[in-house]
Amino acid sequence: MFKAIVTVRLRPSILDPQGKAVLHALQNLGYEAVTQVRIGKVIDLWIEADTADEAERIAREAAEKLLANPVMEDFDVTVTPVETPAAAG
Amino acid sequence: MFKAIVTVRLRPSILDPQGKAVLHALQNLGYEAVTQVRIGKVIDLWIEADTADEAERIAREAAEKLLANPVMEDFDVTVTPVETPAAAG
Repeated sequence: MFKAIVTVRLRPSILDPQGKAVLHALQNLGYEAVTQVRIGKVIDLWIEADTADEAERIAREAAEKLLANPVMEDFDVTVTPVETPAAAG
Repeated sequence: MFKAIVTVRLRPSILDPQGKAVLHALQNLGYEAVTQVRIGKVIDLWIEADTADEAERIAREAAEKLLANPVMEDFDVTVTPVETPAAAG
């Protein structure tokens, strides 16, 4: 069993209104040192595969087909071997 | 200037309906090898600080006060020095 962590971010050239809203909220809380905020998604996938390479291939395909919007988002994938998932599901 | 990456995830004991929906969508696309999906947020903060420790302190405080819901989410913080942000804002 492998865990693939797919991190999806807006491309740098794309404006991030959600990030802007969080920036203003932080600055209203007194965190003027924070000059910019950009928000993305982190998607953890538990994958039954024989090798880490196979798990990575599956994760990349899933990201290209469903998890990331190819027009405005980039993604990266990291894979680690794990025991069976302990999460609530 | 430092970049703090705050990764926010639901606690393992908390059900993740969004993750479940993505899991079913992936399995409908033929990715039966994916057995579980959990979704979180990744928040990039650009912080003006003198040291990495100070940037991390600011990022942790921001996460505790605004970015993460202490009742059901955990977060971790990584800090790296950067040039000025190149993103669109």
